[in-house]
Amino acid sequence: MADEIVLYGNEDWTSPYVFSAFVCLKEKGVPFQVERLDLAAGQHHRPEYAVPSFTGRVPALRHGDFWLAESSAIDEYLEDVFPPPRHAALYPADPRERAKVRMVQAFVRSDVAPLRADRPTSTLFSGDKPGPLSKEGKAAADRLVAVAERFLPAGAQYVAGAFSIADADLALMLQRLVHNHDPCPERLATYAREIFRRPSIREWLGHTRWQER
Amino acid sequence: MADEIVLYGNEDWTSPYVFSAFVCLKEKGVPFQVERLDLAAGQHHRPEYAVPSFTGRVPALRHGDFWLAESSAIDEYLEDVFPPPRHAALYPADPRERAKVRMVQAFVRSDVAPLRADRPTSTLFSGDKPGPLSKEGKAAADRLVAVAERFLPAGAQYVAGAFSIADADLALMLQRLVHNHDPCPERLATYAREIFRRPSIREWLGHTRWQER
Ligand SMILES: [Ca+2]
Ligand SMILES: [Ca+2]
Ligand SMILES: [Ca+2]
Ligand SMILES: [Ca+2]
Repeated sequence: MADEIVLYGNEDWTSPYVFSAFVCLKEKGVPFQVERLDLAAGQHHRPEYAVPSFTGRVPALRHGDFWLAESSAIDEYLEDVFPPPRHAALYPADPRERAKVRMVQAFVRSDVAPLRADRPTSTLFSGDKPGPLSKEGKAAADRLVAVAERFLPAGAQYVAGAFSIADADLALMLQRLVHNHDPCPERLATYAREIFRRPSIREWLGHTRWQER
Repeated sequence: MADEIVLYGNEDWTSPYVFSAFVCLKEKGVPFQVERLDLAAGQHHRPEYAVPSFTGRVPALRHGDFWLAESSAIDEYLEDVFPPPRHAALYPADPRERAKVRMVQAFVRSDVAPLRADRPTSTLFSGDKPGPLSKEGKAAADRLVAVAERFLPAGAQYVAGAFSIADADLALMLQRLVHNHDPCPERLATYAREIFRRPSIREWLGHTRWQER
Protein backbone atom coordinates (compact mmCIF):
# COMPACT_ATOMS: atom_id res chain seq x y z
CA MET A 1 0.00 0.00 0.00
CA ALA A 2 1.25 3.43 -0.91
CA ASP A 3 0.94 4.88 2.57
CA GLU A 4 1.50 1.85 4.75
CA ILE A 5 3.36 2.73 7.96
CA VAL A 6 6.06 0.48 9.38
CA LEU A 7 8.05 1.25 12.51
CA TYR A 8 11.36 -0.62 12.70
CA GLY A 9 12.42 -1.47 16.24
CA ASN A 10 14.66 -3.90 18.05
CA GLU A 11 13.77 -7.45 18.97
CA ASP A 12 13.43 -6.92 22.72
CA TRP A 13 11.45 -3.65 22.91
CA THR A 14 14.14 -1.80 24.90
CA SER A 15 15.01 1.20 22.73
CA PRO A 16 13.87 4.47 24.34
CA TYR A 17 13.85 6.00 20.86
CA VAL A 18 11.64 3.31 19.34
CA PHE A 19 9.45 3.86 22.42
CA SER A 20 9.11 7.55 21.54
CA ALA A 21 8.04 6.86 17.94
CA PHE A 22 5.71 4.04 19.04
CA VAL A 23 3.96 6.26 21.61
CA CYS A 24 3.65 8.98 18.97
CA LEU A 25 2.00 6.61 16.49
CA LYS A 26 -0.37 5.23 19.14
CA GLU A 27 -1.34 8.73 20.32
CA LYS A 28 -1.95 9.75 16.71
CA GLY A 29 -4.23 6.73 16.28
CA VAL A 30 -2.86 5.80 12.87
CA PRO A 31 -2.56 2.15 11.86
CA PHE A 32 0.99 0.85 11.70
CA GLN A 33 3.03 -2.30 11.98
CA VAL A 34 6.13 -2.89 14.05
CA GLU A 35 8.96 -4.74 12.33
CA ARG A 36 11.55 -5.97 14.81
CA LEU A 37 15.20 -6.38 13.88
CA ASP A 38 17.60 -8.68 15.71
CA LEU A 39 20.43 -6.25 16.35
CA ALA A 40 22.62 -8.94 17.96
CA ALA A 41 22.43 -10.85 14.67
CA GLY A 42 23.26 -7.66 12.75
CA GLN A 43 19.99 -7.52 10.81
CA HIS A 44 20.22 -3.72 10.78
CA HIS A 45 23.50 -3.91 8.87
CA ARG A 46 21.89 -5.67 5.91
CA PRO A 47 21.91 -3.30 2.90
CA GLU A 48 18.15 -3.68 2.38
CA TYR A 49 17.71 -1.96 5.75
CA ALA A 50 20.87 0.12 6.19
CA VAL A 51 20.65 1.88 2.84
CA PRO A 52 17.01 3.05 2.75
CA SER A 53 16.96 3.83 6.51
CA PHE A 54 19.97 6.17 6.06
CA THR A 55 21.53 5.47 9.47
CA GLY A 56 20.94 1.72 9.71
CA ARG A 57 19.81 2.10 13.31
CA VAL A 58 16.44 1.79 15.02
CA PRO A 59 13.99 3.35 14.97
CA ALA A 60 13.30 3.94 11.34
CA LEU A 61 9.92 4.74 9.90
CA ARG A 62 8.69 3.73 6.48
CA HIS A 63 5.65 5.63 5.25
CA GLY A 64 4.83 4.26 1.83
CA ASP A 65 8.11 4.65 -0.03
CA PHE A 66 9.43 7.38 2.27
CA TRP A 67 12.00 6.34 4.87
CA LEU A 68 13.12 8.31 7.89
CA ALA A 69 15.51 7.71 10.81
CA GLU A 70 16.10 9.47 14.15
CA SER A 71 13.24 9.36 16.63
CA SER A 72 12.86 13.10 17.13
CA ALA A 73 12.62 13.59 13.35
CA ILE A 74 10.08 10.76 13.17
CA ASP A 75 7.97 12.32 15.95
CA GLU A 76 7.99 15.70 14.21
CA TYR A 77 7.16 14.13 10.85
CA LEU A 78 4.15 12.34 12.34
CA GLU A 79 2.98 15.65 13.81
CA ASP A 80 3.36 17.30 10.38
CA VAL A 81 1.52 14.64 8.37
CA PHE A 82 -1.10 13.69 10.99
CA PRO A 83 -1.81 17.10 12.49
CA PRO A 84 -4.43 18.19 14.98
CA PRO A 85 -7.37 18.54 15.23
CA ARG A 86 -8.01 15.31 13.35
CA HIS A 87 -5.18 13.66 15.33
CA ALA A 88 -3.87 14.31 18.84
CA ALA A 89 -1.40 17.21 19.11
CA LEU A 90 1.97 15.97 20.35
CA TYR A 91 3.63 19.36 19.97
CA PRO A 92 1.92 22.54 21.22
CA ALA A 93 0.90 25.24 18.74
CA ASP A 94 2.56 28.06 20.68
CA PRO A 95 6.16 28.56 19.45
CA ARG A 96 7.60 28.93 22.96
CA GLU A 97 5.84 25.89 24.36
CA ARG A 98 6.80 23.96 21.23
CA ALA A 99 10.39 25.06 21.73
CA LYS A 100 10.35 23.70 25.29
CA VAL A 101 9.14 20.33 24.02
CA ARG A 102 11.99 20.22 21.52
CA MET A 103 14.49 21.28 24.20
CA VAL A 104 13.40 18.43 26.47
CA GLN A 105 13.55 15.94 23.60
CA ALA A 106 17.08 17.06 22.73
CA PHE A 107 18.14 16.96 26.39
CA VAL A 108 17.10 13.35 26.98
CA ARG A 109 18.88 12.34 23.77
CA SER A 110 22.15 14.23 24.32
CA ASP A 111 22.72 14.55 28.05
CA VAL A 112 23.12 12.40 31.21
CA ALA A 113 24.82 9.62 29.22
CA PRO A 114 26.39 7.99 32.32
CA LEU A 115 22.92 7.50 33.81
CA ARG A 116 21.71 5.95 30.57
CA ALA A 117 24.71 3.57 30.80
CA ASP A 118 24.24 2.68 34.50
CA ARG A 119 20.47 2.38 34.27
CA PRO A 120 19.83 0.95 30.81
CA THR A 121 16.26 0.46 29.72
CA SER A 122 16.78 -3.29 30.10
CA THR A 123 16.34 -2.61 33.86
CA LEU A 124 12.86 -1.34 33.02
CA PHE A 125 11.81 -3.55 30.14
CA SER A 126 13.78 -6.82 30.37
CA GLY A 127 13.93 -7.53 34.10
CA ASP A 128 17.68 -6.77 34.38
CA LYS A 129 18.87 -5.91 37.88
CA PRO A 130 20.68 -2.56 38.19
CA GLY A 131 24.14 -2.45 39.73
CA PRO A 132 25.40 0.34 41.99
CA LEU A 133 25.57 3.78 40.40
CA SER A 134 29.07 4.82 39.36
CA LYS A 135 30.37 8.23 40.42
CA GLU A 136 29.54 9.55 36.94
CA GLY A 137 26.14 7.86 37.00
CA LYS A 138 25.34 9.45 40.35
CA ALA A 139 26.36 12.89 39.05
CA ALA A 140 24.20 12.37 35.96
CA ALA A 141 21.26 11.30 38.14
CA ASP A 142 21.63 14.47 40.22
CA ARG A 143 21.84 16.52 37.04
CA LEU A 144 18.72 14.87 35.61
CA VAL A 145 16.78 15.70 38.78
CA ALA A 146 17.99 19.32 38.82
CA VAL A 147 17.20 19.91 35.15
CA ALA A 148 13.87 18.04 35.26
CA GLU A 149 12.82 20.27 38.17
CA ARG A 150 13.42 23.27 35.89
CA PHE A 151 11.50 21.67 33.02
CA LEU A 152 8.64 20.88 35.44
CA PRO A 153 8.27 23.70 37.96
CA ALA A 154 6.05 23.03 40.99
CA GLY A 155 2.44 22.64 39.90
CA ALA A 156 3.27 21.72 36.30
CA GLN A 157 1.60 18.52 35.17
CA TYR A 158 3.32 18.52 31.78
CA VAL A 159 6.41 20.02 30.10
CA ALA A 160 4.11 22.25 28.02
CA GLY A 161 0.49 23.14 28.81
CA ALA A 162 -0.83 19.71 27.81
CA PHE A 163 0.61 16.26 27.19
CA SER A 164 3.31 16.28 24.52
CA ILE A 165 5.80 13.73 23.25
CA ALA A 166 8.41 15.34 25.52
CA ASP A 167 6.47 13.99 28.51
CA ALA A 168 6.81 10.42 27.23
CA ASP A 169 10.56 10.91 26.69
CA LEU A 170 11.16 12.65 30.03
CA ALA A 171 9.03 10.20 32.03
CA LEU A 172 11.00 7.29 30.57
CA MET A 173 14.26 8.97 31.52
CA LEU A 174 12.98 9.57 35.08
CA GLN A 175 11.80 5.96 35.35
CA ARG A 176 15.48 4.92 35.16
CA LEU A 177 15.62 6.31 38.71
CA VAL A 178 12.07 5.79 39.95
CA HIS A 179 11.62 2.20 38.82
CA ASN A 180 15.06 1.22 40.13
CA HIS A 181 14.40 2.78 43.56
CA ASP A 182 17.13 5.36 43.11
CA PRO A 183 16.59 8.72 44.84
CA CYS A 184 14.11 10.95 43.00
CA PRO A 185 11.96 13.75 44.42
CA GLU A 186 8.41 12.53 44.98
CA ARG A 187 7.00 15.22 42.68
CA LEU A 188 9.04 13.98 39.71
CA ALA A 189 8.34 10.32 40.58
CA THR A 190 4.61 11.03 40.63
CA TYR A 191 4.89 12.78 37.27
CA ALA A 192 6.72 9.81 35.73
CA ARG A 193 4.15 7.35 37.11
CA GLU A 194 1.21 9.46 35.90
CA ILE A 195 2.63 9.73 32.39
CA PHE A 196 3.20 5.98 32.37
CA ARG A 197 -0.55 5.45 32.96
CA ARG A 198 -1.34 6.62 29.41
CA PRO A 199 -2.83 3.86 27.23
CA SER A 200 -0.21 4.45 24.52
CA ILE A 201 2.58 3.77 27.01
CA ARG A 202 0.76 0.85 28.64
CA GLU A 203 0.57 -0.74 25.23
CA TRP A 204 4.35 -0.49 24.85
CA LEU A 205 4.84 -1.88 28.36
CA GLY A 206 2.67 -4.86 27.47
CA HIS A 207 5.29 -5.94 24.95
CA THR A 208 7.99 -5.88 27.65
CA ARG A 209 8.72 -7.51 31.01
CA TRP A 210 7.82 -4.28 32.86
CA GLN A 211 6.59 -5.01 36.38
CA GLU A 212 4.33 -2.59 38.22
CA ARG A 213 5.86 -1.51 41.55
CA MET B 1 14.47 45.59 25.48
CA ALA B 2 11.55 43.21 25.45
CA ASP B 3 12.69 41.24 22.45
CA GLU B 4 16.44 41.56 22.63
CA ILE B 5 18.21 38.40 21.43
CA VAL B 6 21.28 37.04 23.19
CA LEU B 7 23.11 33.89 22.16
CA TYR B 8 25.22 32.39 24.94
CA GLY B 9 28.33 30.63 23.70
CA ASN B 10 31.72 29.58 24.97
CA GLU B 11 34.78 31.77 25.25
CA ASP B 12 36.74 30.21 22.40
CA TRP B 13 34.11 29.83 19.66
CA THR B 14 34.53 26.05 19.39
CA SER B 15 31.07 24.65 20.14
CA PRO B 16 29.47 23.07 17.03
CA TYR B 17 26.10 23.67 18.64
CA VAL B 18 26.69 27.38 19.25
CA PHE B 19 27.89 27.46 15.62
CA SER B 20 24.52 26.06 14.49
CA ALA B 21 22.51 28.67 16.38
CA PHE B 22 24.87 31.48 15.30
CA VAL B 23 24.57 30.54 11.62
CA CYS B 24 20.81 30.36 12.00
CA LEU B 25 20.65 33.86 13.50
CA LYS B 26 22.95 35.28 10.80
CA GLU B 27 20.96 33.62 8.00
CA LYS B 28 17.74 35.00 9.50
CA GLY B 29 19.27 38.46 9.53
CA VAL B 30 18.00 39.36 12.98
CA PRO B 31 20.09 41.53 15.30
CA PHE B 32 21.59 39.65 18.25
CA GLN B 33 24.47 39.75 20.67
CA VAL B 34 26.82 36.93 21.60
CA GLU B 35 27.57 36.55 25.30
CA ARG B 36 30.57 34.28 25.88
CA LEU B 37 30.93 32.19 29.01
CA ASP B 38 34.25 30.92 30.33
CA LEU B 39 33.39 27.27 30.79
CA ALA B 40 36.82 26.45 32.26
CA ALA B 41 36.05 28.95 35.01
CA GLY B 42 32.61 27.39 35.50
CA GLN B 43 30.65 30.50 34.55
CA HIS B 44 27.87 28.30 33.17
CA HIS B 45 27.34 26.77 36.61
CA ARG B 46 26.44 30.09 38.18
CA PRO B 47 22.75 30.02 39.18
CA GLU B 48 22.00 33.21 37.23
CA TYR B 49 22.84 31.26 34.08
CA ALA B 50 22.17 27.61 34.98
CA VAL B 51 18.64 28.19 36.30
CA PRO B 52 17.08 30.28 33.51
CA SER B 53 18.92 28.37 30.76
CA PHE B 54 17.46 25.07 32.04
CA THR B 55 20.47 22.92 31.17
CA GLY B 56 23.29 25.27 32.14
CA ARG B 57 25.15 24.44 28.93
CA VAL B 58 25.88 26.41 25.76
CA PRO B 59 24.25 27.40 23.58
CA ALA B 60 21.32 29.04 25.24
CA LEU B 61 19.19 31.71 23.62
CA ARG B 62 17.49 34.53 25.45
CA HIS B 63 14.74 36.26 23.47
CA GLY B 64 13.34 38.98 25.70
CA ASP B 65 12.46 37.10 28.88
CA PHE B 66 12.18 33.73 27.14
CA TRP B 67 15.11 31.34 27.56
CA LEU B 68 15.82 28.23 25.56
CA ALA B 69 18.59 25.60 25.48
CA GLU B 70 19.61 22.86 23.00
CA SER B 71 20.76 24.03 19.58
CA SER B 72 18.25 22.08 17.51
CA ALA B 73 15.39 23.51 19.59
CA ILE B 74 16.91 27.00 19.19
CA ASP B 75 17.18 26.59 15.40
CA GLU B 76 13.55 25.45 15.15
CA TYR B 77 12.38 28.28 17.42
CA LEU B 78 14.11 30.86 15.23
CA GLU B 79 12.40 29.34 12.18
CA ASP B 80 9.03 29.56 13.97
CA VAL B 81 9.35 33.16 15.13
CA PHE B 82 11.29 34.54 12.15
CA PRO B 83 9.61 32.62 9.33
CA PRO B 84 9.95 32.96 5.59
CA PRO B 85 9.32 34.84 3.38
CA ARG B 86 10.36 37.80 5.50
CA HIS B 87 13.37 35.81 6.71
CA ALA B 88 15.42 33.06 5.05
CA ALA B 89 13.91 29.57 5.30
CA LEU B 90 16.25 27.26 7.20
CA TYR B 91 13.81 24.34 7.15
CA PRO B 92 11.96 23.41 3.93
CA ALA B 93 8.17 23.69 3.79
CA ASP B 94 7.63 20.16 2.46
CA PRO B 95 7.15 17.73 5.39
CA ARG B 96 9.41 15.04 3.93
CA GLU B 97 12.24 17.44 3.11
CA ARG B 98 11.80 19.04 6.53
CA ALA B 99 11.98 15.58 8.10
CA LYS B 100 15.29 14.89 6.34
CA VAL B 101 16.72 18.13 7.72
CA ARG B 102 15.70 17.09 11.23
CA MET B 103 17.12 13.60 10.71
CA VAL B 104 20.50 15.01 9.70
CA GLN B 105 20.50 17.42 12.64
CA ALA B 106 19.73 14.55 15.04
CA PHE B 107 22.39 12.34 13.42
CA VAL B 108 25.25 14.82 13.83
CA ARG B 109 24.22 15.35 17.47
CA SER B 110 23.80 11.71 18.48
CA ASP B 111 26.09 9.59 16.32
CA VAL B 112 29.80 9.19 15.42
CA ALA B 113 30.87 10.24 18.92
CA PRO B 114 34.38 8.71 18.61
CA LEU B 115 35.07 10.94 15.61
CA ARG B 116 33.88 13.97 17.53
CA ALA B 117 36.33 12.95 20.29
CA ASP B 118 39.31 12.28 17.95
CA ARG B 119 38.67 15.32 15.76
CA PRO B 120 37.38 17.96 18.17
CA THR B 121 36.37 21.32 16.74
CA SER B 122 39.49 22.79 18.35
CA THR B 123 41.34 21.22 15.39
CA LEU B 124 39.23 23.45 13.14
CA PHE B 125 38.80 26.58 15.20
CA SER B 126 41.71 26.80 17.66
CA GLY B 127 44.66 25.55 15.66
CA ASP B 128 45.00 22.28 17.61
CA LYS B 129 46.86 19.50 15.78
CA PRO B 130 44.93 16.25 15.41
CA GLY B 131 46.46 12.99 16.63
CA PRO B 132 46.12 9.65 14.85
CA LEU B 133 42.57 8.32 14.58
CA SER B 134 41.78 5.60 17.12
CA LYS B 135 40.19 2.36 15.91
CA GLU B 136 36.82 3.68 17.07
CA GLY B 137 37.47 7.08 15.51
CA LYS B 138 38.31 5.44 12.18
CA ALA B 139 35.12 3.36 12.29
CA ALA B 140 33.11 6.49 13.08
CA ALA B 141 34.79 8.34 10.20
CA ASP B 142 33.88 5.51 7.82
CA ARG B 143 30.33 5.53 9.16
CA LEU B 144 30.05 9.31 8.72
CA VAL B 145 31.14 9.01 5.09
CA ALA B 146 28.72 6.13 4.39
CA VAL B 147 25.74 7.89 6.00
CA ALA B 148 26.59 11.31 4.51
CA GLU B 149 26.64 9.71 1.04
CA ARG B 150 23.06 8.57 1.69
CA PHE B 151 22.03 12.01 2.92
CA LEU B 152 23.65 13.56 -0.16
CA PRO B 153 23.15 11.29 -3.16
CA ALA B 154 25.19 12.05 -6.28
CA GLY B 155 24.11 15.39 -7.76
CA ALA B 156 22.59 16.72 -4.53
CA GLN B 157 23.90 20.14 -3.61
CA TYR B 158 22.04 20.25 -0.29
CA VAL B 159 20.41 17.84 2.18
CA ALA B 160 17.01 19.18 1.13
CA GLY B 161 16.19 21.04 -2.10
CA ALA B 162 17.83 24.27 -0.93
CA PHE B 163 20.24 25.34 1.81
CA SER B 164 18.97 24.41 5.27
CA ILE B 165 20.47 24.47 8.72
CA ALA B 166 21.26 20.74 8.31
CA ASP B 167 23.83 21.69 5.69
CA ALA B 168 25.69 23.89 8.17
CA ASP B 169 25.67 21.08 10.76
CA LEU B 170 26.66 18.34 8.30
CA ALA B 171 29.38 20.43 6.62
CA LEU B 172 30.94 21.15 10.01
CA MET B 173 30.91 17.43 10.84
CA LEU B 174 32.55 16.62 7.49
CA GLN B 175 35.18 19.34 8.01
CA ARG B 176 36.48 17.26 10.93
CA LEU B 177 37.80 14.98 8.18
CA VAL B 178 38.33 17.38 5.30
CA HIS B 179 40.17 20.11 7.17
CA ASN B 180 42.36 17.56 8.97
CA HIS B 181 43.33 15.81 5.71
CA ASP B 182 41.63 12.57 6.73
CA PRO B 183 40.18 10.46 3.90
CA CYS B 184 36.89 11.84 2.57
CA PRO B 185 35.35 11.33 -0.88
CA GLU B 186 35.95 14.38 -3.05
CA ARG B 187 32.22 14.89 -3.59
CA LEU B 188 31.60 15.26 0.15
CA ALA B 189 34.71 17.39 0.62
CA THR B 190 33.54 19.75 -2.13
CA TYR B 191 30.11 19.95 -0.49
CA ALA B 192 31.64 20.83 2.89
CA ARG B 193 33.88 23.49 1.32
CA GLU B 194 31.01 25.02 -0.66
CA ILE B 195 28.78 25.25 2.41
CA PHE B 196 31.64 26.87 4.32
CA ARG B 197 31.71 29.68 1.72
CA ARG B 198 28.41 31.07 3.00
CA PRO B 199 28.77 34.54 4.55
CA SER B 200 27.04 33.40 7.76
CA ILE B 201 29.68 30.70 8.25
CA ARG B 202 32.54 32.96 7.20
CA GLU B 203 31.46 35.35 9.92
CA TRP B 204 31.74 32.57 12.52
CA LEU B 205 35.12 31.55 11.14
CA GLY B 206 36.34 35.11 11.50
CA HIS B 207 36.00 34.79 15.26
CA THR B 208 38.19 31.68 15.26
CA ARG B 209 41.71 30.63 14.25
CA TRP B 210 40.36 28.83 11.16
CA GLN B 211 42.98 28.69 8.38
CA GLU B 212 41.98 28.30 4.75
CA ARG B 213 43.60 25.22 3.19
CA1 LIG C 1 22.50 18.67 24.96
CA1 LIG D 1 4.09 -8.78 28.31
CA1 LIG E 1 20.98 8.80 16.51
CA1 LIG F 1 40.07 35.77 13.50
